[in-house]
Amino acid sequence: MGAPAEDPGGFPRTAAVVGLGLIGGSLALRLREIGLRVIGVDTDPAAVALALERGAVDAGGADLGTVAEADLVVVATPLSEVVPVGLAASRRMRAGAVLTDTASVKAPVVAAIHAGIPAGVRFVGGHPMAGSERAGMAAADPALLDGRPFVLTPTARADADAVAVLQGVVTAMRMRPVLLDPLQHDELAAQASHLPYLVSLALRRAVADDARAIGGPALADMTRIAGSPAAMWMEICRMNREAIARALARFEGELDAVRRELAEGAPAR
Amino acid sequence: MGAPAEDPGGFPRTAAVVGLGLIGGSLALRLREIGLRVIGVDTDPAAVALALERGAVDAGGADLGTVAEADLVVVATPLSEVVPVGLAASRRMRAGAVLTDTASVKAPVVAAIHAGIPAGVRFVGGHPMAGSERAGMAAADPALLDGRPFVLTPTARADADAVAVLQGVVTAMRMRPVLLDPLQHDELAAQASHLPYLVSLALRRAVADDARAIGGPALADMTRIAGSPAAMWMEICRMNREAIARALARFEGELDAVRRELAEGAPAR
Repeated sequence: MGAPAEDPGGFPRTAAVVGLGLIGGSLALRLREIGLRVIGVDTDPAAVALALERGAVDAGGADLGTVAEADLVVVATPLSEVVPVGLAASRRMRAGAVLTDTASVKAPVVAAIHAGIPAGVRFVGGHPMAGSERAGMAAADPALLDGRPFVLTPTARADADAVAVLQGVVTAMRMRPVLLDPLQHDELAAQASHLPYLVSLALRRAVADDARAIGGPALADMTRIAGSPAAMWMEICRMNREAIARALARFEGELDAVRRELAEGAPAR
Repeated sequence: MGAPAEDPGGFPRTAAVVGLGLIGGSLALRLREIGLRVIGVDTDPAAVALALERGAVDAGGADLGTVAEADLVVVATPLSEVVPVGLAASRRMRAGAVLTDTASVKAPVVAAIHAGIPAGVRFVGGHPMAGSERAGMAAADPALLDGRPFVLTPTARADADAVAVLQGVVTAMRMRPVLLDPLQHDELAAQASHLPYLVSLALRRAVADDARAIGGPALADMTRIAGSPAAMWMEICRMNREAIARALARFEGELDAVRRELAEGAPAR
């Protein structure tokens, strides 16, 4: 663990973003815009080079040890790597520094990180509700964050000052901090994010090519997210399987109701 | 029937648009942009006034008799009125003038109009695959048409010159003419337009308010069309019920497949 941070409630001066993809890159660009020094960490040299070229980071490389310079560390790797990378980062962070992440499923991630971090590191789970159908540092764009919710999932183990620090950073990034219990987040995200992806995917597969050729803007809107990386989404959805099963059941119930309204000629709601 | 048109294959000089809503208004604006004189007909004086104010029409009113001045008549009323209004217009049109419509379901509409029009009027069914979640002349925007398909559904009874005239007008409007059999149109529109609407509606109902509050852009994209006028959509969907039942079955089969992939941990397609 590095030298301790000076002010546990102070606004961070140096942030480290681990994982320079669509979300990590967008956050890095915005954090620099609002005046922080930003260190980027990614195992892919091309992502680091592009982040440097685009001015998303002041310095970058594959060495996770550089997180020791940061007051705030954001783990924005693919979901399956958030826990191991977050724990590895926490062992290199300075005492009092704040750790958060961008994982789309919170309960299992938050529990695993709390179970493994050193006492001096202050962890609060996070999920910026932003993105696009694109992927990678090349598609990173801080405008994707504007006005979007950034869910924070403090548990009883979270440090209140650290929550306040993150609320301040989120607000400064022009996002809206939303505090939720990790399980509550997962239930709502199943409805608001994971279900729409799965429905979009099924719809894209159900529409034949000759039908797609005459599709209007509604079809394009509804199948856009199905074009985002399937492996990433299936990993997310598998980790939130139970909440997604409930969301799918709600959706199918509503689809049955719509079908009945069509058949019966009942007035539309 | 009015005085005959001069040139059966010539590009129309005067168009009448009956029904100045989102689509009729957008078509009127574009037809004027490309140099036609445009007469607007709507039973709602406010729609006519707004069309005049916005420069969508050169003249307008509630009198369907003014279609006698037009070489091309486009019926863009709500679906349930397309047949009666189209037939009433056809009895006032000049011999040789071209009649088309914008109904979202073609087979029953095309059959009913062909069964009732006078011999001198040349009818070809049409469906511009354009729109938005908004409604009415206030939301009309010719940019909605740019590059969009405009399906034409000539049958054995259609006049080849009239089809060519419409293909020319559609192209001049910066849209893409697509020729389809009416039944084929209805099958494809069920998949590409009606199914997405019904899925969007079910999804909007399935997502609780607290989940919607943290929803990302994908949820907004996927529920946008559900915000368009429900009465209009239910009328469309009821008229195309059989093709929609097939499209819904395709969709539900794909949703089951997605659920199995989630459960089994199989690689995502």
